[in-house]
Amino acid sequence: MIYIVNGPNLNLLGKREPSIYGKTTLEEINKKLHKIAEETKEELVFFQNNSEGSIIDYLQSLSPHSKVIFNPGALAHTSIALRDCISGCELDVIEVHISNIYNREEFRQHSFISPVCLGTITGLGINSYILALNYFLNKNE
Amino acid sequence: MIYIVNGPNLNLLGKREPSIYGKTTLEEINKKLHKIAEETKEELVFFQNNSEGSIIDYLQSLSPHSKVIFNPGALAHTSIALRDCISGCELDVIEVHISNIYNREEFRQHSFISPVCLGTITGLGINSYILALNYFLNKNE
Amino acid sequence: MIYIVNGPNLNLLGKREPSIYGKTTLEEINKKLHKIAEETKEELVFFQNNSEGSIIDYLQSLSPHSKVIFNPGALAHTSIALRDCISGCELDVIEVHISNIYNREEFRQHSFISPVCLGTITGLGINSYILALNYFLNKNE
Amino acid sequence: MIYIVNGPNLNLLGKREPSIYGKTTLEEINKKLHKIAEETKEELVFFQNNSEGSIIDYLQSLSPHSKVIFNPGALAHTSIALRDCISGCELDVIEVHISNIYNREEFRQHSFISPVCLGTITGLGINSYILALNYFLNKNE
Amino acid sequence: MIYIVNGPNLNLLGKREPSIYGKTTLEEINKKLHKIAEETKEELVFFQNNSEGSIIDYLQSLSPHSKVIFNPGALAHTSIALRDCISGCELDVIEVHISNIYNREEFRQHSFISPVCLGTITGLGINSYILALNYFLNKNE
Amino acid sequence: MIYIVNGPNLNLLGKREPSIYGKTTLEEINKKLHKIAEETKEELVFFQNNSEGSIIDYLQSLSPHSKVIFNPGALAHTSIALRDCISGCELDVIEVHISNIYNREEFRQHSFISPVCLGTITGLGINSYILALNYFLNKNE
Amino acid sequence: MIYIVNGPNLNLLGKREPSIYGKTTLEEINKKLHKIAEETKEELVFFQNNSEGSIIDYLQSLSPHSKVIFNPGALAHTSIALRDCISGCELDVIEVHISNIYNREEFRQHSFISPVCLGTITGLGINSYILALNYFLNKNE
Amino acid sequence: MIYIVNGPNLNLLGKREPSIYGKTTLEEINKKLHKIAEETKEELVFFQNNSEGSIIDYLQSLSPHSKVIFNPGALAHTSIALRDCISGCELDVIEVHISNIYNREEFRQHSFISPVCLGTITGLGINSYILALNYFLNKNE
Amino acid sequence: MIYIVNGPNLNLLGKREPSIYGKTTLEEINKKLHKIAEETKEELVFFQNNSEGSIIDYLQSLSPHSKVIFNPGALAHTSIALRDCISGCELDVIEVHISNIYNREEFRQHSFISPVCLGTITGLGINSYILALNYFLNKNE
Amino acid sequence: MIYIVNGPNLNLLGKREPSIYGKTTLEEINKKLHKIAEETKEELVFFQNNSEGSIIDYLQSLSPHSKVIFNPGALAHTSIALRDCISGCELDVIEVHISNIYNREEFRQHSFISPVCLGTITGLGINSYILALNYFLNKNE
Amino acid sequence: MIYIVNGPNLNLLGKREPSIYGKTTLEEINKKLHKIAEETKEELVFFQNNSEGSIIDYLQSLSPHSKVIFNPGALAHTSIALRDCISGCELDVIEVHISNIYNREEFRQHSFISPVCLGTITGLGINSYILALNYFLNKNE
Amino acid sequence: MIYIVNGPNLNLLGKREPSIYGKTTLEEINKKLHKIAEETKEELVFFQNNSEGSIIDYLQSLSPHSKVIFNPGALAHTSIALRDCISGCELDVIEVHISNIYNREEFRQHSFISPVCLGTITGLGINSYILALNYFLNKNE
Repeated sequence: MIYIVNGPNLNLLGKREPSIYGKTTLEEINKKLHKIAEETKEELVFFQNNSEGSIIDYLQSLSPHSKVIFNPGALAHTSIALRDCISGCELDVIEVHISNIYNREEFRQHSFISPVCLGTITGLGINSYILALNYFLNKNE
Repeated sequence: MIYIVNGPNLNLLGKREPSIYGKTTLEEINKKLHKIAEETKEELVFFQNNSEGSIIDYLQSLSPHSKVIFNPGALAHTSIALRDCISGCELDVIEVHISNIYNREEFRQHSFISPVCLGTITGLGINSYILALNYFLNKNE
Repeated sequence: MIYIVNGPNLNLLGKREPSIYGKTTLEEINKKLHKIAEETKEELVFFQNNSEGSIIDYLQSLSPHSKVIFNPGALAHTSIALRDCISGCELDVIEVHISNIYNREEFRQHSFISPVCLGTITGLGINSYILALNYFLNKNE
Repeated sequence: MIYIVNGPNLNLLGKREPSIYGKTTLEEINKKLHKIAEETKEELVFFQNNSEGSIIDYLQSLSPHSKVIFNPGALAHTSIALRDCISGCELDVIEVHISNIYNREEFRQHSFISPVCLGTITGLGINSYILALNYFLNKNE
Repeated sequence: MIYIVNGPNLNLLGKREPSIYGKTTLEEINKKLHKIAEETKEELVFFQNNSEGSIIDYLQSLSPHSKVIFNPGALAHTSIALRDCISGCELDVIEVHISNIYNREEFRQHSFISPVCLGTITGLGINSYILALNYFLNKNE
Repeated sequence: MIYIVNGPNLNLLGKREPSIYGKTTLEEINKKLHKIAEETKEELVFFQNNSEGSIIDYLQSLSPHSKVIFNPGALAHTSIALRDCISGCELDVIEVHISNIYNREEFRQHSFISPVCLGTITGLGINSYILALNYFLNKNE
Repeated sequence: MIYIVNGPNLNLLGKREPSIYGKTTLEEINKKLHKIAEETKEELVFFQNNSEGSIIDYLQSLSPHSKVIFNPGALAHTSIALRDCISGCELDVIEVHISNIYNREEFRQHSFISPVCLGTITGLGINSYILALNYFLNKNE
Repeated sequence: MIYIVNGPNLNLLGKREPSIYGKTTLEEINKKLHKIAEETKEELVFFQNNSEGSIIDYLQSLSPHSKVIFNPGALAHTSIALRDCISGCELDVIEVHISNIYNREEFRQHSFISPVCLGTITGLGINSYILALNYFLNKNE
Repeated sequence: MIYIVNGPNLNLLGKREPSIYGKTTLEEINKKLHKIAEETKEELVFFQNNSEGSIIDYLQSLSPHSKVIFNPGALAHTSIALRDCISGCELDVIEVHISNIYNREEFRQHSFISPVCLGTITGLGINSYILALNYFLNKNE
Repeated sequence: MIYIVNGPNLNLLGKREPSIYGKTTLEEINKKLHKIAEETKEELVFFQNNSEGSIIDYLQSLSPHSKVIFNPGALAHTSIALRDCISGCELDVIEVHISNIYNREEFRQHSFISPVCLGTITGLGINSYILALNYFLNKNE
Repeated sequence: MIYIVNGPNLNLLGKREPSIYGKTTLEEINKKLHKIAEETKEELVFFQNNSEGSIIDYLQSLSPHSKVIFNPGALAHTSIALRDCISGCELDVIEVHISNIYNREEFRQHSFISPVCLGTITGLGINSYILALNYFLNKNE
Repeated sequence: MIYIVNGPNLNLLGKREPSIYGKTTLEEINKKLHKIAEETKEELVFFQNNSEGSIIDYLQSLSPHSKVIFNPGALAHTSIALRDCISGCELDVIEVHISNIYNREEFRQHSFISPVCLGTITGLGINSYILALNYFLNKNE
């Protein structure tokens, strides 16, 4: 089981600011990920929410060392509670970002989440998710 | 249709720290705004919530270029997710603050919301809302 | 009597950088404000100057609690003397800015003037002046 | 009546990072506090939530000068809305932290909550709660 | 044996700035602490000094894991030598402050002492000492 | 000849914010200084202006090593041009301030003028001027 | 053709600090990448150098939009010349790091390279390279 | 027509601090520039003023794309109004400084003017002006 | 009674770094002050010490509103305990410095003592003391 | 003999980012400089290298007070070793930049090289080199 | 005569935190130094004190250009008075530290003492003292 | 075997800025070190280079725990790659500096190298090398 967790505003994907985030919707991303995982018979679970508290509730419900692909959106830059949740629950998280946050505003260049994740994949559009999925699927081989 | 959206603790208006925020309650403000809009037959919709996530949910439900008078309260200083929501949904927002935040604590003097709004009205008490309403009503002429 | 005071370079309005400041000249703004005030029989006095010292001289000539709509231009970010003048003369000032200074350069995001004003209206173009005028006119009712 | 309010991830107590937070669960802490209060016939009310908004909702429901023992967890470092809630509702709050936040990461060393509380008790493990309770109980004598 | 150590100016307690520090003198605090400890037959030793050097001399004279209630006063914010002394001598120190230092000047909000103490109790007036004493007395049970 | 030069807003002395600046007007100060100097037959010249440029013009008109008592007001914190003027003209300046600028806003605690002056006298009200005058008069003996 | 470029000290991989960088040598990584690419008949070219100047020379020799997997090592944090080289040569670069640089020293948390790359993959050990290769190989489909 | 504009204290050239600014007076510089321009029949206009406001007045009187050699003196470091004036009037300005401001005080190392100028020439003494003149004269060829 | 209190290293006056501090010894200064005060029959008390703690002990021994001329030397920049002592004992202190600390190292430009003093006299050599004495003597008239 | 030294990536001139650096290649610049110098019979020597070390080697080979026109490229912002080389070898260097570095990224606005150069010419495109050459040629007259 | 001066807590050497400071006591260090100096007939004088004031008293008692090996302990990071004492007394001081302060806390990485010493020896354990002694002994040859 | 490694510009020793670095050339230093080592039959190897990359190449060629006396020159302040090289190769390095870098420019007061060295010797001229050599030679006893 691999968890695909998306934070606030990522349900807008494909609708907002296409010059930054591309035209693919979150549903299309999820479908694509589903198709890739299908071949390996790995089950995917999708979760999106705009509320820090609800995401914490959700992550707390997973068992230790669950595999999580997490795009925290703007919460990456502001939420210490999410950081504590990930390290407290001992989850294996890969943080992904669609856009290259390093050539955007200064405040988007620090993530409270990164230090407690396995790693981070940034700026590769929808491929940020796909590569993270590859990582977890290969590990199962 | 014009949306009057208030963030955390603004339901306390008229009750808390009257030396800073005055004695008018949020209900009285809304009533006053309603009365002003009535003459122009413009409909007003009121929303107040203490949760960042719920406000994002609400703003996402509005159509692009909706007219929004938004007092984000303390979230102005901490929420990048709300900023992304406003720009992602392409809302026409006027940010209002009741008190003059520029002669209060240092941390109240930066707003993540302002740069994605049409403009900001600050420090004029309940008139901050009324002037913003005037702005939108005049535009309809 | 309401005073409309404009700082350095605002005599260029409608001529410089129209993508930021719009196409309306200062004279046209003043005419529009005059027309609005006329109905209420409130007299308006206009003053524009490029020199910090001359603006201080002018503001000092007003009596306490004079109503002033003040666009300090770039002096907002650099002049402590103007701040002292406003608080020393006990003027009732609304600071206005035409452009949304919060999505421009960092150094435009702090105003020495704001903390000693009644309030601030920013980013609403020529309407920043009109709303401020509304505020003072309504108060007379 | 004394309110024991815990913020995000404190429901993980005794489960996460025992080297930092010890092995006692939140339930065990609450039981212990309950037992101490029982002797004085003071009633205790317990509340834990992972969402800033829900905690604000809860605190707003209390009457002024309610006695609150509050462990805001990571929200201490990021939530100005909680700060405004406490001061707006005029609650008598003691902020408690289980670990010594002063020898952890830099960002854990500033609390937006502390300045509006009666006081703070930090680093004494479960005793941080017990001492705070002692404080309120003694005051009733 | 429990040591009650007070730094510079705390001999002025009850005399200086009563609006911040209350009206109780240091002698009265000590008497109160003495009375509380008496019941448990725990001996208390009192020490106050205005000199960093003399406090270091004193703390060095204690054996490892001595229980110390320490109000360092202003030295909390400036003395690295005291910090080294506490960690070097392996003392079990609870740092106490009478006033809520977090809503005072910026420079009072960092303590070099805190990271090497068991914990910190701040803002509860004379109760800051009493709760710290409770902590040590309970431990003996 | 000793020059008494006052910067912006000091013509408001005795009128503005008497809790900070006292009730003596600039004319009364000058009269008092005149009376003191009279006994020593030293001539005093008085100059006040609200404009940085005019003060520079004035200071440039003095000959090197002229004795100047200078209260730059708010320009102390913002004017590098005045600093260059003083050092370029090789004037012997004592900078004076009426209020204790060190317990006011942060931005009032740095003076560009101080490093090129003989010395600074701050916080002693009208006596700041008198002591500076004493300094120059004694030097004539 | 895909270029695998490694900066200073990466020839030490598998030898230095295995707790941070793992036990795989650079040769073994290259072999693994080679094997993966082989199936797609994509040719790989390997380059490692300890000198900023030589890496610039090398990158300048590539044609625009060459595909480059680049681990700049410590030069990521200090070399603006490398950044200019990448943007000047219009290379399509994915920046990779083996360790999670976000939970190491502060100075390792800013990269001059990232803003001019397509994206960044960090913290996934040897898989950082493999995922980047996957990205480029998939694009060829 | 080329405009040679000098800010505050530059009328002191050749008189003040010769170790920094050399011994040539502004008149001598102007004469030299005049002689150079004469051969090309290009007319030069000279302006010097100690007041920010007067320089703004002057620059506003020039037509767009006028060629200006501007030594703003200390105003380079403090005047945002001058910056707005140059960009608002669309002037073609070369900023010149006589001394090497980069090995002087920290506050002399940032210029608000530079970003809106064509370029900057610094540290070459009177040649800073001459080279700027060369630039404009060559452009006329 | 007026107290002349000198902090660490001021016993070296006239011996150390004469280019900064002049050639007059502390004894000579005291003699001069004594001679001036003699005429007014005001008694002077002299105290110098190199230890923060001893100076605090001394200042605590004075009664409220004692007149103190205090040169704290380097302790001005580092001692919060001295600041608390002055405000706690409600002493009327004038802070004096012999050299112009504003054109020396950066760390000499902030004084913890200044905000709790009546005023500050800096840079006027031995006259810094004399003017402060004048201030207190005149007050007696 | 005059030395034209160019740092990393300047061999890309005319090829990279023409909107910033123009379309002239380094060879064309050198040819143009050569042609200008030819008339004065001054010999020019050209050197370009991408490596800090090689540039230092080269500069060390020149005799004291050699005339050098140096475009350090990105090394201006990062290389203290180059700075030490220039001052250690006592070279007469004019630093030139083609683009106006003051309206680009923050990190391009500080040069370690400038303080040890005679002067700096910035933002005038290829003319930055030509004016520097003029400077050295005129000096020979 | 060579003076070995140790600041606060160095009397704890060999007792406190042996993982950082080693197991040798200060007495053993002194004995070792004594033995080394003996051969050269150079006399050593030892002084240790926990009080800044007492160390200043001691250093002031030495004659100019006395040779001093000084481990200021934590006072290195906080005492400007000690710095002034060393430069005022014109002592020839070598600052020594036992541990490598550069890989410890941030606040241990700046020393107020270093700039007024001949040099600094850090991180070499007891050898830091021995090498400093070597330096002074060799100089006598 | 002990390695004496010198970074950029140290080949200029004895030639450049003798007021800072003295008159001894690097060859003379090496000769002196050689003579000292000779007696102990310890072999010395000398290496100097102006290029970061070449120094890294050289250090990588040494076996773990090689004894290295390293004067990195200006690279101390800018090279993280050198730091990684030293820690990656597990070299036993003593960092030496000839001048007292702590009373020079701010940017010379931080070394990236120091934290991964055994220790640092600064400011003692050629003796900085000699003492470091003593350290390694004594260790062999």
